[in-house]
Amino acid sequence: MTSVRPAEIRVSEIFGPTIQGEGILIGLPTVFVRTGGCDYRCSWCDSLHAVDSEYREDWRAMSTEDVWQEVVRLSGGSPVMVTLSGGNPAIQPLGGLIDRGHEEGYRFALETQGSVARDWFAELDVLVLSPKPPSSGMETDWEAFDACLRLSKGRPQTVLKIVVLDEADYAYARAAAARYPHLPVYLQPCNHTPPPPDADDAPIDVEGILERMRWLVDKAAEDRWLEARVLPQLHVLIWGNKRGV
Amino acid sequence: MTSVRPAEIRVSEIFGPTIQGEGILIGLPTVFVRTGGCDYRCSWCDSLHAVDSEYREDWRAMSTEDVWQEVVRLSGGSPVMVTLSGGNPAIQPLGGLIDRGHEEGYRFALETQGSVARDWFAELDVLVLSPKPPSSGMETDWEAFDACLRLSKGRPQTVLKIVVLDEADYAYARAAAARYPHLPVYLQPCNHTPPPPDADDAPIDVEGILERMRWLVDKAAEDRWLEARVLPQLHVLIWGNKRGV
Repeated sequence: MTSVRPAEIRVSEIFGPTIQGEGILIGLPTVFVRTGGCDYRCSWCDSLHAVDSEYREDWRAMSTEDVWQEVVRLSGGSPVMVTLSGGNPAIQPLGGLIDRGHEEGYRFALETQGSVARDWFAELDVLVLSPKPPSSGMETDWEAFDACLRLSKGRPQTVLKIVVLDEADYAYARAAAARYPHLPVYLQPCNHTPPPPDADDAPIDVEGILERMRWLVDKAAEDRWLEARVLPQLHVLIWGNKRGV
Repeated sequence: MTSVRPAEIRVSEIFGPTIQGEGILIGLPTVFVRTGGCDYRCSWCDSLHAVDSEYREDWRAMSTEDVWQEVVRLSGGSPVMVTLSGGNPAIQPLGGLIDRGHEEGYRFALETQGSVARDWFAELDVLVLSPKPPSSGMETDWEAFDACLRLSKGRPQTVLKIVVLDEADYAYARAAAARYPHLPVYLQPCNHTPPPPDADDAPIDVEGILERMRWLVDKAAEDRWLEARVLPQLHVLIWGNKRGV
């Protein structure tokens, strides 16, 4: 990838401040910039409205400055953690937004599967690499994944976050953690009832998620895998599948 | 306090590994050492079985070595984060246990209200200071609290964790955060249906806790208090009021 930064960012939604519901920043107030478009199609994707091109009419092509002004408006000008999510935000030109926000004391976390590497990863404050396990139906390109780490130059705080649906996913998570022993690991029980992209606040099997959470906690403990954190999607427990919270 | 270390630790229960359900270590596998006895009587205490002297017959006076051997047994000899909780664990002689565990690569987090300062606080890896807000019925002795920080010598990772039931508690949390601007803050919606000390797995108002969680997230966002993390007691959502998980 070159460092060319086209003017426009494809945006699905910008909302917040609300708390980050997952992973290393769980509980932290953040403004989400969710970009449109993804090079993956995970079977249990919970953000299809930002992934499936059927919904691309809802996406807006925005300039870096327009995205920035919306972040400032939502945060009332108070520096906040900005979470760049998607879809896969790595396929958007976000380097300029990060630079702009840093000038004002904002911080930036990126959530990506690690399939597309960008030189601006090195400007991030937090890099959440979320390789997709077998149940997603995707296959991990570990060379692309390694390129993400290489281009980040060790600057952002970097972690692995892996969704786990079943035993095969758990084995995948174990292998990924072994491959990157220096990276903190966050395991996340899969939400197996993701919202359909055209329905806000769809029903959700909370008890099923909690059951998977308990299974995962027990499994990691039995394996003496005592470094990985196990965290559910807190926003799903608090707000269900509702969007924009 | 002197550095005299009496032989016996008053223990209410030792269990795990399970995940830490609260605060900075949320999601991390840990073995809990819950000590018996407390200098506080919080109105909504969720561990009365480790606080009220009515239950002291269930507490065991154990040597440091016996406590250590139980931690080793539960963790299968794999180094794990040990959480020292209570009651108020600061009134127990825990310095020797911390030294013993450190020799084997274990780490130690202490949860205390900050009413009793010990020189061994400086040996901790994580110090969670949890001053009690007005709804607890307790009054904070800030001089004792400052002594905890002083004796920790800035060595452990130190955070504030504050339970919030209502507006008055929120104002207290705001003031405490302003008093210690260098300490990360974790806000925790109060579990207003704590388990009675003699009943395992008592009913619990999950929806009420989630309602308070949503209120707290909104309130912090409206106030542009964007550095404090807001986290519920995850173990209560996952396992209810059940003990030993």
